[in-house]
Amino acid sequence: MATSRTSEITSPAAALTEAAPAPQGRPRSRAVDDAILRAAMELFFEHGVQGASIEKIAKRAGVAKTSIYRRWSSREVLLAQAIEVFRSTIGPSVEVMDRTPPDMFLALLIDACGAIARPQVRKLLTRLIGSIADCPSLMAVYRENYLLPRRNAFVRALVRMREAGLVPAASDPELLADMLIGALVQRVVITPSTGDTPEALRGYLIRLLRQAGVELPDKATGA
Amino acid sequence: MATSRTSEITSPAAALTEAAPAPQGRPRSRAVDDAILRAAMELFFEHGVQGASIEKIAKRAGVAKTSIYRRWSSREVLLAQAIEVFRSTIGPSVEVMDRTPPDMFLALLIDACGAIARPQVRKLLTRLIGSIADCPSLMAVYRENYLLPRRNAFVRALVRMREAGLVPAASDPELLADMLIGALVQRVVITPSTGDTPEALRGYLIRLLRQAGVELPDKATGA
Repeated sequence: MATSRTSEITSPAAALTEAAPAPQGRPRSRAVDDAILRAAMELFFEHGVQGASIEKIAKRAGVAKTSIYRRWSSREVLLAQAIEVFRSTIGPSVEVMDRTPPDMFLALLIDACGAIARPQVRKLLTRLIGSIADCPSLMAVYRENYLLPRRNAFVRALVRMREAGLVPAASDPELLADMLIGALVQRVVITPSTGDTPEALRGYLIRLLRQAGVELPDKATGA
Repeated sequence: MATSRTSEITSPAAALTEAAPAPQGRPRSRAVDDAILRAAMELFFEHGVQGASIEKIAKRAGVAKTSIYRRWSSREVLLAQAIEVFRSTIGPSVEVMDRTPPDMFLALLIDACGAIARPQVRKLLTRLIGSIADCPSLMAVYRENYLLPRRNAFVRALVRMREAGLVPAASDPELLADMLIGALVQRVVITPSTGDTPEALRGYLIRLLRQAGVELPDKATGA
């Protein structure tokens, strides 16, 4: 792999600075929360779910296991939150999607391709999907708490776009969302490890949207 | 998980009887080929790529490591073939896709949902995608030799359907294939481990096809 181990890990961990979740305890324990989340995320990236036990996370974070159990109800809940800290730096949040007007939504989506094309995203997706066989509860927790709310916001945006006449009236927004997300995820995951450039992924998404009958205003495609 | 370990492994291994590849050596070495492929497939299903080393495969198959190296140029080539032995029992082959007339192709596709909905398919997909982070060459070998030829046959069938007026004239068969396969794979992989019933998956595929503007003759939907 061309990407070095260091650059793959530094980046997700650096995400903590910008996108850390609200502290759960007193302010002074925030540093401990961050250290645990960072250790969980690093171990999950490096070794997958098998290598991210509470014991190893505690060791790498330099805390006692009880410090973790006091904060998170299970390993899956901790790992799902750690993944989300990184994931929340890729693409728009539920709040941003919900307040974006229909004619601006495609530009938001196309812009997100820059982040989605990063090799770390592919690695995160393969680690997460790869965890299903040995630890199905991680994907279950992640899906309920993070994946579905984001997908539902995407569906709501497609409904608003349909009302605005930007998506064919006969379209089913749920199916449209599945086809767009499914094609994109497949492209990112199955493509050779060199991956697509952000420009190539943007061009691909624009072709997908046209195929789906979505109206593309010039400001969305940057044309 | 509701599915027991035994039933998950017995089934893929049983596939060898029906769908074993052509023997590479003399006829009497066919039994050795089968034992090695079966051991490789079982270990990959049980433990993923990390647990399917040449050493462990040789031990489980009851052969010397040299017997494996004589037959396969690398572990990835062996694992990819072992996966394909199971995979070839799911859905139509390239040959069947290529000789199916355009008006019969959808029925073939919808019929395949019965096999795609099996829990073993989900597990195989998660193991294969999960191998990308630690062993990207396995997916690369599998994609080149098995995944792309099948996808290309699907695209050729969509081209013939477009010529027959069953797919909108303005459609891009490549994009259509990506959206249909992407949505289906996402549905199978991300859905809770209980999975969809074959009927539910069939209904989902039919809705996807309608969303994509594909003409569905009554004989395809069984209506």
